[in-house]
Amino acid sequence: MHYRRLGSTGLQLSALSFGAWVTFGAQVGRGEARNLIACAWDNGINFFDNAEGYARGEAEAVMGDVIADLRLPRDGFCVSSKVFFGSASEPLPTQRGLSRKHVLDACHGALRRLRVDYLDLYFCHRPDPQTPIAETVHAMNLLIEQGKVLYWGTSQWSAAQISEAIAIADARGWQRPAMEQPQYSLLERDRVEQELAPLCAQGLGTTTWSPLASGLLTGKYNDGVPAGSRLDQPELGWLQQAQLEDPGRLHRVRAFTALAEELAVVPAQLAIAWCLRNRHVSSVILGASRVAQLEQNLAALEVAERLDASAWTAVEAIFPRG
Amino acid sequence: MHYRRLGSTGLQLSALSFGAWVTFGAQVGRGEARNLIACAWDNGINFFDNAEGYARGEAEAVMGDVIADLRLPRDGFCVSSKVFFGSASEPLPTQRGLSRKHVLDACHGALRRLRVDYLDLYFCHRPDPQTPIAETVHAMNLLIEQGKVLYWGTSQWSAAQISEAIAIADARGWQRPAMEQPQYSLLERDRVEQELAPLCAQGLGTTTWSPLASGLLTGKYNDGVPAGSRLDQPELGWLQQAQLEDPGRLHRVRAFTALAEELAVVPAQLAIAWCLRNRHVSSVILGASRVAQLEQNLAALEVAERLDASAWTAVEAIFPRG
Amino acid sequence: MHYRRLGSTGLQLSALSFGAWVTFGAQVGRGEARNLIACAWDNGINFFDNAEGYARGEAEAVMGDVIADLRLPRDGFCVSSKVFFGSASEPLPTQRGLSRKHVLDACHGALRRLRVDYLDLYFCHRPDPQTPIAETVHAMNLLIEQGKVLYWGTSQWSAAQISEAIAIADARGWQRPAMEQPQYSLLERDRVEQELAPLCAQGLGTTTWSPLASGLLTGKYNDGVPAGSRLDQPELGWLQQAQLEDPGRLHRVRAFTALAEELAVVPAQLAIAWCLRNRHVSSVILGASRVAQLEQNLAALEVAERLDASAWTAVEAIFPRG
Amino acid sequence: MHYRRLGSTGLQLSALSFGAWVTFGAQVGRGEARNLIACAWDNGINFFDNAEGYARGEAEAVMGDVIADLRLPRDGFCVSSKVFFGSASEPLPTQRGLSRKHVLDACHGALRRLRVDYLDLYFCHRPDPQTPIAETVHAMNLLIEQGKVLYWGTSQWSAAQISEAIAIADARGWQRPAMEQPQYSLLERDRVEQELAPLCAQGLGTTTWSPLASGLLTGKYNDGVPAGSRLDQPELGWLQQAQLEDPGRLHRVRAFTALAEELAVVPAQLAIAWCLRNRHVSSVILGASRVAQLEQNLAALEVAERLDASAWTAVEAIFPRG
Repeated sequence: MHYRRLGSTGLQLSALSFGAWVTFGAQVGRGEARNLIACAWDNGINFFDNAEGYARGEAEAVMGDVIADLRLPRDGFCVSSKVFFGSASEPLPTQRGLSRKHVLDACHGALRRLRVDYLDLYFCHRPDPQTPIAETVHAMNLLIEQGKVLYWGTSQWSAAQISEAIAIADARGWQRPAMEQPQYSLLERDRVEQELAPLCAQGLGTTTWSPLASGLLTGKYNDGVPAGSRLDQPELGWLQQAQLEDPGRLHRVRAFTALAEELAVVPAQLAIAWCLRNRHVSSVILGASRVAQLEQNLAALEVAERLDASAWTAVEAIFPRG
Repeated sequence: MHYRRLGSTGLQLSALSFGAWVTFGAQVGRGEARNLIACAWDNGINFFDNAEGYARGEAEAVMGDVIADLRLPRDGFCVSSKVFFGSASEPLPTQRGLSRKHVLDACHGALRRLRVDYLDLYFCHRPDPQTPIAETVHAMNLLIEQGKVLYWGTSQWSAAQISEAIAIADARGWQRPAMEQPQYSLLERDRVEQELAPLCAQGLGTTTWSPLASGLLTGKYNDGVPAGSRLDQPELGWLQQAQLEDPGRLHRVRAFTALAEELAVVPAQLAIAWCLRNRHVSSVILGASRVAQLEQNLAALEVAERLDASAWTAVEAIFPRG
Repeated sequence: MHYRRLGSTGLQLSALSFGAWVTFGAQVGRGEARNLIACAWDNGINFFDNAEGYARGEAEAVMGDVIADLRLPRDGFCVSSKVFFGSASEPLPTQRGLSRKHVLDACHGALRRLRVDYLDLYFCHRPDPQTPIAETVHAMNLLIEQGKVLYWGTSQWSAAQISEAIAIADARGWQRPAMEQPQYSLLERDRVEQELAPLCAQGLGTTTWSPLASGLLTGKYNDGVPAGSRLDQPELGWLQQAQLEDPGRLHRVRAFTALAEELAVVPAQLAIAWCLRNRHVSSVILGASRVAQLEQNLAALEVAERLDASAWTAVEAIFPRG
Repeated sequence: MHYRRLGSTGLQLSALSFGAWVTFGAQVGRGEARNLIACAWDNGINFFDNAEGYARGEAEAVMGDVIADLRLPRDGFCVSSKVFFGSASEPLPTQRGLSRKHVLDACHGALRRLRVDYLDLYFCHRPDPQTPIAETVHAMNLLIEQGKVLYWGTSQWSAAQISEAIAIADARGWQRPAMEQPQYSLLERDRVEQELAPLCAQGLGTTTWSPLASGLLTGKYNDGVPAGSRLDQPELGWLQQAQLEDPGRLHRVRAFTALAEELAVVPAQLAIAWCLRNRHVSSVILGASRVAQLEQNLAALEVAERLDASAWTAVEAIFPRG
């Protein structure tokens, strides 16, 4: 494993990290969750990503139990939560969003479920047009001053919204957002490479998600949606639609898997390795429901170092910059 | 129920809320209090208003016990207290007012009686000419920084006093008052519609009280003060005087109840519904001593949506703007 | 009793208050201390003055036990401590002065001995030339932000030192000193009336000590130092020297006691009443070792209101302004 | 013993202090550690220096146990820790450096090992080019605001780095670094006398280490490295190289020990006494593994006062200013 600073902060995150999204508390039970986190930790992963909204808080509860059970040293790993969607099945009006009340309540809930005294990273999971940005920045700063959060950031915020948060923080002497969590993969390049790049150049870190575009870049949907696969899950129908509705996407993915075969690497490793080559990426969050899958994806580190420039030129030729 | 932001904050309050004033700890015992709060909660009310001065703290103690007993989720409801009058029967000089000492002591007392870790809203119940506004704003900001209060505001302060508090807060980087709690009804329009409107336009929220003008707008005093009614209570003689001394008021109320009959709505519902139509009102606080009364008043939500413009024109013709 | 604001703050102190200096932990034991505080409280005194240096912390321990034993309501009384001299018999270098370390340690010690969660007033007992004023102001502000102190002030600081503390506080957004504790009596007028008056006019409060000039103004030293009196105590030899070395002082005191006899008031009451007439005085601290003495001095309130202008002219003729 | 202010702060440190470096948790066990600290305390030493990195936290654990066992009064002694190297045998990426995470985690670890509620002094043990200085200054200020640290400083930072930290603190209203811990001895004069002097003149304190240049100035290496001596320890090979590689150094030391003999003082005492003469030095940290050695070195206080100007001229002639 190698480690990168979270943007311009002093926090060293593993270049590959592990996220609980759509797995923990859902198809992954506690036993397999323990195996996954143990495997991640043993391979040098030190950042575990989570959110109040993943499986209604259950993803945090599972992760908290596993981390406690494995006795990971608190100063050696980083854990995150995200606030916005709430953890109730049908959140009441004050149980979601970015109001001071919910930002504080959600933090306390995440600390309890994750069984830690502080969150290393705490994200606004979405922008909330119903709350002034200043109210949210103040609440985040308050949590940092109280020692409950180390670094706060955003997820799926526009560059304009992040810039506004930075300007508010600077004007009042509050802590700036330190990172954004955007989607980033060969199929979703623009937000990181176009929109966020200027902010990253000024120090914003990124913890990116869905490096395989919901599995599309593994090639497993090249011939349709297999039964039991992620895109086959009814509640993720929106994902299937987003990933598969454009026939050009599937066409490029087929060319990509052919290239991977030519380079003698697994397509998923190639896709993840490509993400790692962007120095604006602080950490690439991997999801996995099985240890074998995680181990395979971890090998992307080695692929990123091994392939030469011509290989990357070939990859980029398939997925040209937007 | 529908929900509104508390002024420009991100806090979502139910458009109708429930207050303990002159009922809890007095004519309403714990059993009926439980029924009332359960009814309010089941109908979507998420804001429960209180004050240290209501029944000498007993209103808060009753509400705290009931909320704990009903196991309402802490992140799903909002509760307030107000500081100024003290909770002792004969408050000592430091047991009332808005000094730093009493603002902090009263908050701790309210937290204990209401059995919560923080107050969602904390009001200065009256202006205190014996304390510099800066001292009070500092104390409120301190409670917010300590996590004991989310939003602070005022009650029955003049627009000039609120503006001074805002200016002090802005100059020192402290939290502004987020809301004012004024009286507001067809019989008391001026403070909200004339005096506070410019501040509301800039983001001040309002949680309004006495939408029925102490019951006058129900029509129940149209033919005199019934025995056992609120205005018949000896300790509320000042209220009777304020509400009934002007014969023109009673005249207009009689016309209003006739109009309500014509529109086939209960007068109380019509009076509350009219309050809801003002978008500067964040939440209309209902008082009730019986569940049936509360249920009837909750139907004002439906009345507010059902009646057409001509009905409101007729209402306003009876109570012209000041 | 009547109550006055502590300078421009909102804190209402009784015009007469009770101090533990040279009595508690020394000639006054716990039984008499209980009687004294009970008598003071029953007569409306709400401010009890103390210091870490009084009887090496024992004065605070006695007062804390008595207040707890009497079950005085925490929001109804005010208690102070002062930091500088330390509470050890031979203080180590870090156990005295106004360094951040000692200001914080001494506060924690006083809270423990007085058995309270916060000090209402916390004084710098002397200026400390070995500590930058900014370090002390920062420490005091920190204690206020932490909720351990409500108002901080000084004792026996020069107007220039207080002004410097105010300027530092204003420049950094910290809390200003709210009060000074000077000596003030007919025999010691200058500091309050000349030096501090401009600061008082801008809002500085004063809690004054030694209204009887160590008993001199009672007339009991008119014919020499009685055995067992305060000035007869060996460790207070410096006091005897200060009070009695100037023969003019004793001369004026004899004229004063004659005037009191003429006005048919006890000299001590007249001396205390005169202090009360200065509106720059927030509270006159009384010392007493016996209940009868305290009761006699409390009657100064009535004397202050009863005497007419000619009486005060006669008093001032004896002790002309400096 | 005499006491000096830590730079311009109000903290009074003993001119000689005691450090745990390379002794506690290594060749010095708990029994001898207890004797050493008791001896230091009995001789007026009030500052005990430590670091997370000394014997992997074990030096702090030993010192904490001994101080608790000796029941030293918390307001009478000062204890330090330093953050940077971590306390794990092979620190993980987040277990070292000056990130907000490690600065806070390391403080909490030191408080636990040293068994105290606050650290009097907390040092950045080295500069961390991987963390913005502003992040570290913010974390230090946060610990001061939380009452966990009294004064923060640096160790082995350049004057430029310290100046940057001061500028950041001043601009944001945070606490400045109050002290630097540099190496200082007759063989290492430049950093203190050249580089740091301007900052010291503006109020920076210094707690200096290695007054004997790892023992070189005792003369015990004049004829080679004795078996079992500090420079004979394999893990301190870098020290031996630094101290002995330059033959000119040993030459000067031999002249120095001859001079000491001439002046009838122990060379170590003469070397320590020379450090004490620099008023920019707040405290000279002594290391010792045996009580007899500590007692001998404590006599440097008397040597510093006894020798006349001609003696110091002779010393400086051997080790001319850089």
